Amino acid sequence: MDPTSLPPQGRLIYAAGEACADLLYASGVMTPDPFLWYAVPGETGIVMSPLEVGRARKEARQGVRVRSLEQAAQAWQLPQGKRGPVDLVRGLAKTTGIRHWSVPYDFPYGLAMALRRFRLVLTPVAEFFPERAVKSETEVERLRGGVQLAEAGLARALAILRKATIENDRVIWKRKVLTAERLRGEVDAEIARLGGTASHTITAPGPQGADCHMSGTGPIFAHQPIVLDVFPRVDRTGYFGDLTRTVVKGKAAPVVQRAYEVVRTAQRKAIEAVAAGVTGKRVHQLVVDTIAASGFPTDAKAVPPHGFFHGTGHGLGLEVHEAPRLSLGYDQPLVAGNVVTVEPGVYYPEWGGVRLEDVVVVRDGGCENLTTAPFELEIP
Amino acid sequence: MDPTSLPPQGRLIYAAGEACADLLYASGVMTPDPFLWYAVPGETGIVMSPLEVGRARKEARQGVRVRSLEQAAQAWQLPQGKRGPVDLVRGLAKTTGIRHWSVPYDFPYGLAMALRRFRLVLTPVAEFFPERAVKSETEVERLRGGVQLAEAGLARALAILRKATIENDRVIWKRKVLTAERLRGEVDAEIARLGGTASHTITAPGPQGADCHMSGTGPIFAHQPIVLDVFPRVDRTGYFGDLTRTVVKGKAAPVVQRAYEVVRTAQRKAIEAVAAGVTGKRVHQLVVDTIAASGFPTDAKAVPPHGFFHGTGHGLGLEVHEAPRLSLGYDQPLVAGNVVTVEPGVYYPEWGGVRLEDVVVVRDGGCENLTTAPFELEIP
Repeated sequence: MDPTSLPPQGRLIYAAGEACADLLYASGVMTPDPFLWYAVPGETGIVMSPLEVGRARKEARQGVRVRSLEQAAQAWQLPQGKRGPVDLVRGLAKTTGIRHWSVPYDFPYGLAMALRRFRLVLTPVAEFFPERAVKSETEVERLRGGVQLAEAGLARALAILRKATIENDRVIWKRKVLTAERLRGEVDAEIARLGGTASHTITAPGPQGADCHMSGTGPIFAHQPIVLDVFPRVDRTGYFGDLTRTVVKGKAAPVVQRAYEVVRTAQRKAIEAVAAGVTGKRVHQLVVDTIAASGFPTDAKAVPPHGFFHGTGHGLGLEVHEAPRLSLGYDQPLVAGNVVTVEPGVYYPEWGGVRLEDVVVVRDGGCENLTTAPFELEIP
Repeated sequence: MDPTSLPPQGRLIYAAGEACADLLYASGVMTPDPFLWYAVPGETGIVMSPLEVGRARKEARQGVRVRSLEQAAQAWQLPQGKRGPVDLVRGLAKTTGIRHWSVPYDFPYGLAMALRRFRLVLTPVAEFFPERAVKSETEVERLRGGVQLAEAGLARALAILRKATIENDRVIWKRKVLTAERLRGEVDAEIARLGGTASHTITAPGPQGADCHMSGTGPIFAHQPIVLDVFPRVDRTGYFGDLTRTVVKGKAAPVVQRAYEVVRTAQRKAIEAVAAGVTGKRVHQLVVDTIAASGFPTDAKAVPPHGFFHGTGHGLGLEVHEAPRLSLGYDQPLVAGNVVTVEPGVYYPEWGGVRLEDVVVVRDGGCENLTTAPFELEIP
């Protein structure tokens, strides 16, 4: 079939710019309320409520036409009082003669069914903007801003741990036992103060650090590793940062010191290996091999698992986990402009975990590290 | 048709507990990753990844069966390696013989289409849990926790404004001009420190306060109203607080003083009127009439609009805006256990806005105010 004879296709998103990374990427506008984005031959645009249209005109991505609800209603000849998303899409479909629309996988099913009743054909697409994986230099700068927020949060945690004292193996700060919750609250507060939002910050002391999904709770003890993993979003841009360091208040046990060296070596090798043309799988395999050769055992199927049992890294952008990945399943080559975390770790339920994480931009012939946070295991 | 002869129906949600209030309500489990919730005759349950299943067993709502992915795969006889949401629902449908499923309006369209290919019938439902509008006493206590977080954020803002000095009509704090951004950062930081997350906190100085969707930017000037609207989420429970006060650093202009009195009177009358059996429309009309009688003019269609042009209040729970509403369109009677904001305001582009907001629980014969923050317009 001659592809030029295919019927014209449009694209639609209906979501809140804040909750939907695809919509934020497509429009540049961050709102708590849902709005419509569309792309038809010759025009890409968004339709905004009267309360949002002024701000949208300032913030919208270049090339995106911002229509107020009333302008859209007029242009698409909507009947009086018909201003809902179904009405808008019907009007747009009639005006353009387009019946076939592609939508994101998580497009609202209720809205899709309402549109299908009007004989529109909606096709869900799993990766709606695959180009999101390749960052522009503007996006790289926004991600650098996210990493800097994470670094400010980490710096706050380190300053508290430095000022804290040790009494009977407990860590005391401002005359009270320092708990994981207090430490997390202070990290998140520092990030909030600087215009970011941190959720699920990990401040996991001792054995809790061995469970990667554990935020951390209860008293922090001296001489035990604390996993500090901070991934804030910049309020203004929506881009994320991501950073992990592991520290000990006091003296690290020999096994923790060795684990730290192994993880640091594996991370360094991985960062040296990242470059355009290299596969995520190869970078990951390098980390797996380095850790295995060190003598630290891995069993991913044990309950709980131990050793190094997660991927080496993930893409970072308007979502905290996005394409591409540094993992076994990822055998396409990385391309210049990918931004990925590099975060090997080892975990043992007896004593906890060590994880170290930087964020790098894939370049031709190597990568650029956006992270500047130092590596220091012990805090006296 | 005899209703007992209807085919058996099931219910499904597939989302992240954190992003989907319905799922959090149904399961009690808050995760960043999506999971499946189902209800079939005789069983309500969730299916969790190996990493989340332990935590889910602790946090799940009473009566919700927590199955690990492997347990579900075994019970529903999934083929080896088939563990995705489509596989799970197909297995559950086969085991129970249920073909008809209701799902939330925003169920992922891509997943729905994949399931329809296996001859399952999915019906989107606009209000999936209408019972969410009626809070249990446990939920009321969680909402009280949200309001207390908001009050702590407000208290921080007021403390800063009290300590600040006035130099050439600018407000100076810690030797620098106090901006809307700095004030917001400090409010959000206080809330983060206490275990909450505040987004879009409004610290809107002067004329910016007249635009309800404006967070506020730039220097705060003395003798001008500042709208402080704080709506944090409690990290542990997912319930929100919501609180607005309007203050002036220095001396309020006579028109602002009068506006404050009118809004406070309207709010007091509305709170006195809220009770089980009263409609949201009636409460709203009382506010409209009170403000109109005061001589403050309203024009909702002007560009920009002025006067009192929004609803009087909205339900508060696992979403910051939910049912019921105190507004013209809402002519069902309130019921005991509804939790609503009461937030009249007046707005004039020349000088800004005054809004005052409390959160109340509808009771028989009246309401209980969860808010304890004082009312003071001027901060010397």
